[in-house]
Amino acid sequence: MPKYHDELDAVLRALADPTRRTVVERLAKSPAVVSELAAPFSMALPSLMQNLCVLENAGLVTSQKHGRVRTVSLRPGALDVLHLWLGEQRTPAEHQADRLGIHMTRTTPKET
Amino acid sequence: MPKYHDELDAVLRALADPTRRTVVERLAKSPAVVSELAAPFSMALPSLMQNLCVLENAGLVTSQKHGRVRTVSLRPGALDVLHLWLGEQRTPAEHQADRLGIHMTRTTPKET
Repeated sequence: MPKYHDELDAVLRALADPTRRTVVERLAKSPAVVSELAAPFSMALPSLMQNLCVLENAGLVTSQKHGRVRTVSLRPGALDVLHLWLGEQRTPAEHQADRLGIHMTRTTPKET
Repeated sequence: MPKYHDELDAVLRALADPTRRTVVERLAKSPAVVSELAAPFSMALPSLMQNLCVLENAGLVTSQKHGRVRTVSLRPGALDVLHLWLGEQRTPAEHQADRLGIHMTRTTPKET
């Protein structure tokens, strides 16, 4: 699956930068205009735009311009590729713990 | 939480490389000796050792030497920091879908 791996590479590289991660954390709450995203950083606007470009190329965010205002949103399902990969890396011990958890849920009487 | 963010930086940077990710994928199944980890790559052993060093510094793997054989293991809970961060990024829509899922589980009669 080269596409899946290329996507993972891009997402992981994009998220390895603390500034870009802070932008994703903010956008997980709601879309935001660029000036609002820039506010927490002592960073020139062109540098922030460059980081947004990396996030957009990695498929993590989308943006729309209305007049002079650009609004950035987290792309729905943006982090799915990472969820999927993490799920695949569950160790045999974790799988066993999962099964035990399911068994406990099924057999433990509910509190009333 | 600077420690948490430093840990995340290191883990994401380590995983952004496809070779290192393949090593983690292999180790999620079971520990392995270095020669076994090297087998799928057309890579000189020193380069692989360098990648293992990055994974070890990021807290993702541990290794033990017995005589001339070094065995590498995925550190238990190695990917927890990433699971945690991903969980924190759930959007309001995803939270709503979760709640709906829980509601469906509680109200849908079990098939017998």
